[in-house]
This record gives sequence, C-alpha cells and structure tokens, in this order.
Amino acid sequence: MAIEAGFIGLGAMGAPMAANLLAAGVKLTVHNRTAARAEPLRAQGAIIAPAAGDAAQPGGIVMTMLADDGAVESVVGGPGGIAARLGAGGVHVSMSTIAPATARRLARIHQAHGGFYLAAPVFGRPDNAAARQLVVCVSGPAAAKQRVRPLLDAVGCAVFDYGEDAGAANVAKLTGNFLIAAALEAMGEAFTMAERNGVERTKVAEMLGKTLFACPVYQRYGEAVAKKQHLPAGFALPLGLKDVELVLQTGREANVPMPIASLVRDRLIAALAHGRAGMDWSALALGVLDDAGIE
Amino acid sequence: MAIEAGFIGLGAMGAPMAANLLAAGVKLTVHNRTAARAEPLRAQGAIIAPAAGDAAQPGGIVMTMLADDGAVESVVGGPGGIAARLGAGGVHVSMSTIAPATARRLARIHQAHGGFYLAAPVFGRPDNAAARQLVVCVSGPAAAKQRVRPLLDAVGCAVFDYGEDAGAANVAKLTGNFLIAAALEAMGEAFTMAERNGVERTKVAEMLGKTLFACPVYQRYGEAVAKKQHLPAGFALPLGLKDVELVLQTGREANVPMPIASLVRDRLIAALAHGRAGMDWSALALGVLDDAGIE
Amino acid sequence: MAIEAGFIGLGAMGAPMAANLLAAGVKLTVHNRTAARAEPLRAQGAIIAPAAGDAAQPGGIVMTMLADDGAVESVVGGPGGIAARLGAGGVHVSMSTIAPATARRLARIHQAHGGFYLAAPVFGRPDNAAARQLVVCVSGPAAAKQRVRPLLDAVGCAVFDYGEDAGAANVAKLTGNFLIAAALEAMGEAFTMAERNGVERTKVAEMLGKTLFACPVYQRYGEAVAKKQHLPAGFALPLGLKDVELVLQTGREANVPMPIASLVRDRLIAALAHGRAGMDWSALALGVLDDAGIE
Amino acid sequence: MAIEAGFIGLGAMGAPMAANLLAAGVKLTVHNRTAARAEPLRAQGAIIAPAAGDAAQPGGIVMTMLADDGAVESVVGGPGGIAARLGAGGVHVSMSTIAPATARRLARIHQAHGGFYLAAPVFGRPDNAAARQLVVCVSGPAAAKQRVRPLLDAVGCAVFDYGEDAGAANVAKLTGNFLIAAALEAMGEAFTMAERNGVERTKVAEMLGKTLFACPVYQRYGEAVAKKQHLPAGFALPLGLKDVELVLQTGREANVPMPIASLVRDRLIAALAHGRAGMDWSALALGVLDDAGIE
Repeated sequence: MAIEAGFIGLGAMGAPMAANLLAAGVKLTVHNRTAARAEPLRAQGAIIAPAAGDAAQPGGIVMTMLADDGAVESVVGGPGGIAARLGAGGVHVSMSTIAPATARRLARIHQAHGGFYLAAPVFGRPDNAAARQLVVCVSGPAAAKQRVRPLLDAVGCAVFDYGEDAGAANVAKLTGNFLIAAALEAMGEAFTMAERNGVERTKVAEMLGKTLFACPVYQRYGEAVAKKQHLPAGFALPLGLKDVELVLQTGREANVPMPIASLVRDRLIAALAHGRAGMDWSALALGVLDDAGIE
Repeated sequence: MAIEAGFIGLGAMGAPMAANLLAAGVKLTVHNRTAARAEPLRAQGAIIAPAAGDAAQPGGIVMTMLADDGAVESVVGGPGGIAARLGAGGVHVSMSTIAPATARRLARIHQAHGGFYLAAPVFGRPDNAAARQLVVCVSGPAAAKQRVRPLLDAVGCAVFDYGEDAGAANVAKLTGNFLIAAALEAMGEAFTMAERNGVERTKVAEMLGKTLFACPVYQRYGEAVAKKQHLPAGFALPLGLKDVELVLQTGREANVPMPIASLVRDRLIAALAHGRAGMDWSALALGVLDDAGIE
Repeated sequence: MAIEAGFIGLGAMGAPMAANLLAAGVKLTVHNRTAARAEPLRAQGAIIAPAAGDAAQPGGIVMTMLADDGAVESVVGGPGGIAARLGAGGVHVSMSTIAPATARRLARIHQAHGGFYLAAPVFGRPDNAAARQLVVCVSGPAAAKQRVRPLLDAVGCAVFDYGEDAGAANVAKLTGNFLIAAALEAMGEAFTMAERNGVERTKVAEMLGKTLFACPVYQRYGEAVAKKQHLPAGFALPLGLKDVELVLQTGREANVPMPIASLVRDRLIAALAHGRAGMDWSALALGVLDDAGIE
Repeated sequence: MAIEAGFIGLGAMGAPMAANLLAAGVKLTVHNRTAARAEPLRAQGAIIAPAAGDAAQPGGIVMTMLADDGAVESVVGGPGGIAARLGAGGVHVSMSTIAPATARRLARIHQAHGGFYLAAPVFGRPDNAAARQLVVCVSGPAAAKQRVRPLLDAVGCAVFDYGEDAGAANVAKLTGNFLIAAALEAMGEAFTMAERNGVERTKVAEMLGKTLFACPVYQRYGEAVAKKQHLPAGFALPLGLKDVELVLQTGREANVPMPIASLVRDRLIAALAHGRAGMDWSALALGVLDDAGIE
C-alpha cells in the first residue's frame, strides 16, 4: 500500500493497530506521549515523530487512538496541533471512543483549517486489534471516508458507515459499549441467582452461550462473570466508567433517560470503592455478589 | 417410536410439541381444558382424554405444558390428579416455566405416590416449537431422565441436564428469560439514545446483530425493538411479567437482590398500564420511548 | 368506659395497646397464641381467652393486632373463627398492616355472617403505643366506625377516616410505611455522600431535622441512620420487607410502577443477606455504606 | 448596620435578599448582568455597579447569588474579577448552590490574592427569601465567617457552620436538595398508588403532613404533588436537574453510588422530554403518573 499516514497513541490498542498498518505496507509516522512505547515499531519501519503535530503532513492523514476526549482535544487544536498541520485537504481519523458532542466540535476545528474529521471508533480488545479483528464504525465526509478506507481495512474486519455526521459513529459505538455493560450486570444477577439456588454458574453460562446467546459478548464475558475472573484487565474498569458516563451524557443531551445506564454507573463506582480499579470492567458484576453477601 | 405418553396443555406451545411427538411415532393421549384445541391432533393419531387425569396410565409418562404454577398444581394433586393416576414408577415431565419452589413441592407429591417428577422447561417460541428447535433444560432423577430422553429429543434440538434437584432446571430456565428481558430493556435504551442523536435504530441493531451480539436474542428481538414492532405476541407480555416475578421471587428466597429484574418488572407493569397486554413482551422496550416523550 | 371488647395479638405493639384499653376502663378479653404473654394483663383486669375465637361474643367487638395477612386470616374464618363467633352485628377492628386486597376479602367473610370489618392500621412503634400516641387510619361501614371510636381514641392520639372501602385504610397506611422506607434510603445516600466528602453525618442530620425536615421520621430515623445505630429493632427488618412487598403488590394490582419501592426492596434483601434480620428496618441504609466500601 | 458590601446576582432569590440587606442598613453596591433588574433597588438606597467587579472594594465584602458554577467562576477570576478587586483581606460570600469541588477551586483563587472565600449556600425559595426565612449553611475561614455574620443574619433565620473547608457548606446544601428530590419522587409513587387504589391523593398527603411528616418539605411539596400543581416554578426544573447532577458528581468523586439520585435524575430528564422545563422541579413526580398511564 503506497499510503502515508501518521498514527498517534500507541497504547494497548494503538500499538497493534499501528503494527498492522505497517504490515499492510502503510508508510507510518508514529507518536506516543511516552516515547519508549514507539520504539518497537521502528524495527517494523515506522518513523518516530517527536511531537504529536509532527505526525501530520499538509493534506495528509493522521489516525489517533487516545484515551479520552481530553487527550484527543489536546492534539487537535492550537498552532502546533494536527488540525493546523494537516491544513487544507487533510484527514483526521479519530478512533477513540469519545462523546459525539466532542466529535462534532473537533470536526468544526478541522473544517476551519480546510480539513476533514472522520469519527472511526472501534469495537474490540487488544487481542482483537492484534488479530485485525476490530469492528469499525465510521462517519464523516464521504470523500474522506473513501480515501482512508484501505487504512480501516488494514486494522479491522468490518466497517459500518453511519453517514456524514461527525458524531454518528460515536453514537453507534456507545450503544455497543452500553449493551456490553448491561449484559455484564444482567449476567451477574442471573448467575448469582443460580449459584444461590444450587445451580453452578458456569453450567448456566455455557448453556446460554451455546444457544440463545451464542455470541462473543455472552461467551467471552459470560465465562469471566461465571468464573469471577476479572484479571487481566482487557478493558480497564475506569475506562468502562468513562464510557458509561459518555452514554449517560449523550442520552441526557437528547432527553433520553437510561435507567440501566444509571444502574451500571452506580455498579462501576461501587467497584472503584472496593478497590477494583485495576480489574477488567467486567468486575462490575462482582457488585451483585457483594449485595448477596457472598465471599 | 414405541413409546406411549400423555400430553396435557395444547396451547400455542403445547400443540406443535404434541404434533412433533406424534410425528415421531409416540402413541399420544392428549388433553386440553378447552377440548376443541385437541381436535386437530386426532387426525394425526392422538387419543383424546376427557379429563386431565385420563392422560395418565399407571407407571406411565405424562408431559405437561401449562400456563403457570397454579395450572400445573391443579392437574397434579388430588384423587383424580396425575400423581395418583401415574402412581408407582410413573413420570411427570413438567415443561412449563414455573417457580423452582413449586417444582420441588410437586416432586414431593409424585414421590409420595412412588412416582417421579422431571422439570423440563424449554426455551423457544411457537415457531421454534413447530420446527423442533426448542432448547430443553432438564432436572430430576437420573433413571427417569433416561427413560424420557427420546420424548425430549422429539420436541427439541438440545437438552441440558441440571442434575437431580427438581428445581434446578427451572432456575436455569429463569436465568435465560431474565437475560432476554434485560436485553430488551437495554436495547430499548440504546436504540432510543441513537434515534434521538440522529442515528437510525435499525442501523445500530443490524451492526450489533452481525458482530458483538450475533445471536438469536439480539437478532430477533433486536429487530422488533428497533422497528417498534411488537405484534403478534410470540410470548405474551403478561406471561413475561409472570416470569420476571418468578425470577424476583427466586432471587428473594436466596437473598439475592436483582436490580435489573426489579427495573424490568416496573417496565412490564407500565406496559400493562399503557394497554399493551396483548403485545409481545418485547413491548416493554416501548417504555423507554414513553420516557423520552416520543410518539 | 362501659364497653366490652376482645383483643387478639399481644406482641410488642398489641400488649401496650391492650393495657391502654384496660386503663381506659374497657372490659377486655384477651388472647395470644403464646399464652404467657397474656398473663401480665390479668393483673390489670383482663379476662384470658383460651382460644382466639373465645375473645369474640355474639354481636360484640374484637380487635386484632397480628403479624401479617396470614395470621389475621387464620383467626377470622372457619367454624371457630371470630367471624362466626361475632355473627350478626359484630365488629372486627383489624389493626395490622395487611394488603388492601386481604382486607377486602376479610370484609366479605364478616359480611357473610352479618358482621362488620373495620380496617384500622396504626402508625407508631412500641413506645408510641405505650404512650397512646398511635395514629390510626380507619375505613369500613360508618356505623361500625362510630361504635368503636372510643376504643380507637383509647389507643391513639389521632384518627383519620378513609371512608367505607375495607381496603382504603391499609392503602393509606402503606403509603406512610413506604415513605419512611424511601426516606431511610435517601438519608443513607445523603449522609454517606457527606461523610465521604468530609462532613459529619450527624451535623447534616441535625440541621435538616431542625429545618426543612423537622418531623418525627427524619429526626428519629435520621439520628439512627447518621449514627449507624440500628439496635434495638423497634420495627424488625423482615417486617419492613413484608410491608414493602405489600406496597409493591398493591401498586402492581393497580398497574403503578414504583421504582423506589423496588429499590428499597432490593436493599432490604441485601440486608438479610448480610445477616441483619435482627436489626431495625432502618438498617437498610447500611447498604449504602456497603456499596461505598465503608467499614 | 454600618457594614458595606457588594451584591452580585439579582434574580428571583438575589433581589429579595439584597432588599433585606438594604432594609437592615447595609450600604450595598449591587450588580446584575441584566441591568434593569437592579433599578428597583436604587430606590431603596443601593448603588448600581456597572460591572461585576465594580461591586468589590479592596479588602471589602462581596456576596454573590448566581445561577451556577460557571456564572460564579466568570465573576471571580481574571484581572477585573472580584478576587483581584477584593485583594488582600477581602471576603467573597458565595451563596449559590455549586459543586464542592468548584468552591474549593474558587477558594484557592481568592487565597492567591490574599482574600477569603466563604461558601454560604441557602435553603429556601423566593418567598422564603423575601420573608428573611432562609437557612444558611456556611463554611470557610473562621475570622471571615465572624465578619460577615451580620450579613447572613440579615438574609436568613438560621445559620449552620460546617467548619473551614470551602466545600463543606455546599456538601451540606446538596444533601438537603437531594433529600427533597427523593421525597418528591417517593410522594409521587405513594400518592399515585393510593389514587389508583381508590384513595384520594390529598387525603393521604394531609394525614402524613400532620403526623409522621409534619415538616415544610412534605407539607408544601406534598400538596403540590397531591394536587399535581407544579406552576408557578418556585424552583425551576432545569435548576433542580443541575443540583441533582452536582449531587451525583459529588458522590462520584468520593466513590459513593447514590441510586435514588440516579433515579431522580432520570425522572428530571423525562420531565424535560415531556416539555416540563418551565415547571417547578416538583413536576418530576408527574413521571409516576406517566408510567401509570394516567391522563
């Protein structure tokens, strides 16, 4: 692939994604706040950019995979920001899960510089990223989407297009994360009810994962919840709380009460209060055990 | 199949199940409170029993597929009840979704007559029953389970064994129904949040049904919730409420608080208050739209 | 007072109520399942009835103060029950907190014998009962209410009349108990939020109890919740759960979802799971501390 | 009173408070963003400050009664802000209900200029403000509290001191507002349950307001909820939502899940969705009627 691109954010998700882009032949300039994390990619042909803005070329493409709204905003605006550095015709492919409202604000900044903002958040955990099995939701200007499509194909296995609105892809992403959180709590309640009535948690989880709920979320997370195993943290609990709060905020802005989202937020806060910040967000289901006086 | 059996309860689920048993060669004596519903099975070779107890032969097998705990209890006990009529060595295969506590009580009644009680509740809706695609959860004495296994195979596509406790299979069944109800509410919240943020409900439902949630519950119910289509009632809303109340009661008896179950119960009650008793139980998700002031 | 009456149920509430009736000059025939509890009243002039039915005279008055719906039902019906023994013109003053539906059923039983049923549940705890400070809600036939009014005045400080419907007074009673439970949970949340933000629980409770919430429930229960003191059990936690379940059932029968009632029920179940059955029902507020990882 | 002070924010609450200060002899310099609202106070002797900062004299006192965190922050910082204008020895008495975290941040700004920040949020509605019946919670440096005490006495009927932490008084204030919101929802549920069971809402409200809940919140708001009368807006619904969100945020920062706060937030959002933004926040209780299909 003769495409050039910048890539900012080489965390647990970003690093394998960048590696896949390099493997696909993309000429990649990478940047990470903690520079050491960029080094392994140098051997695969990546150019290291000393500052985030240096990953952007006039009229080029920059992909970002950063922790939260604030982190993305911090690399976009200002004189050395990627909006200014990309300038006219440039494209920012923003792959973090952020608020739709933030996405729309960032789109306006790029637009002011003649550039384009694409929201392209992904579903998947680090092992999915490594296996090029991410699901990508994308929204933004059609021409820009067409231009970056090979890059999206190089990191994911499926791309779903949500039209032109910069916020739309993040709305779609948030529905998915919310449904996972809801399923975690529901499984926690179901399996604990079973356990206390003399039925093994795993026997219920396996049956459901083979029949009505034969899908990745219930199979993978179902096993974790059934076995009460929430380490290592594929998706850290505080990030899960951040996402659920984005869900609530996005519902709030459109006057949509979301009671399960409220409930799951409370469970995640309780998990923090119980010292579970280092666990996977599936540990929210331990709250059901706490309530039932187990352990 | 040279097996003889009785079958009581020819409703939307029972009728196709009985038809499949006849098709498999079972010599079936059927009974339904409203006799007219039994007639179509006569042509397929069924013998019609005038009273419920008449479907039972000494030492034989009777399957029941009745509406609720009370309906099952009404055919089991008393002088003309099936426990007495089956007597020593008889087996009652009870396929309704009832409380684990009721199942244990019924098991004791059969035991007092020298007979056996098997809990064998099923997952599936009428079209699954017709297609012999039911998932069966079974629990009770091992020898009895072995004896009736051909009958279970004639109505379902998979059988999961939950051991000897008469209540266990119903516990497993209730976890599944509860998880469906939780998913309905969660999808209602997610899709309404999307709709009010400018993203089509069906586009989110389809994406999730193809990826993270590629399983029957999210595909089938996801389409219903996305399209706000809750007719015809594959599983009537009042029956859904009955099951959620069984879930709560079963949790309560074991001191397990289940906040999503409480929430879903409230949604189902609100649906009744809005005149939705004739709809499928997936109509509980309309409550999210009510809250958001839509329609 | 030249009135004669029977009194059944000499528990923590009934005993001081009966003592007040005797002190007011009522000629009282008392009965308690555990006979020993009746003895102290003999010295005050009470006649001891060996069986519950013996507390009833043809055309007379019987007051009951029993634990729950089942206990009241067990003394009313049947050949030796108080409905038959009171017969035509008799009045049953039923002071327990029971389901409105149960009250209506009991009223029909008395009516069949030509007698009258009055619902007269009371607000107050044992010390209020001893101090003749109970608040009485009453409903039922007007003439019967007039006849027993001196008896109600002898046990309480205020009587509120809810008309002729046998269920009405219990509906009113349940609203009060529900509001107390809701206030307990709300105070638990508020005071724990304060505590964790460096503000003493008692300083908030005192301020509110002197100003916006200067009323018995917030003052008395506010102190208990603020100080985390839930012993002795003025009103035992399992009885509180019974009442909240009556509230939910009464809401359910009229299609009224009550989410705070659902939440409080979950808290009370969690309290049972944590071994707090012997505490006052205000201990439901400890659940907030559990969630916040305190202690 | 020979005290001089500035007063910023002459809304529904601030205007009567300023009038009471003038009536008490305070030499008051007032400012309001919409200048016209300041005019009526001129006749009572107030000096009108053209800009917010002009209400502050070096080493003097400024009271603020503004809408929200942002409004207070906008008048404090910057070169023309009151922190700079008050300078060393000055005191800012901040009477709005804001986040404890914001209060602590503002305190640091004043401290940097050698001045003092006092949190002094108040309980009460406009008619209470006019009647000098506000309840004041205060926290901050002791000397500053002593200096401004006559001003607090001129606007309120009671002052509760929460120590030196700038955030503490707001924590106390938030507990009160939260308990009101919880009581509104609980009364909505209770009265609707009564209504649907044939008992008049007002008869329950009156009984409770005379007995167990004989306090301002249940009497005043109880009447509004019972009669479904939520106009005029003594405390506008969007401000109520703002406060509940401050409560949730304050709980969140200390890892305290507050499920009733979550529930009440959802009710307030639903109220916005139903076009009730112009009503009093007690209109949150209408959500119970919506759920029950009433009207």
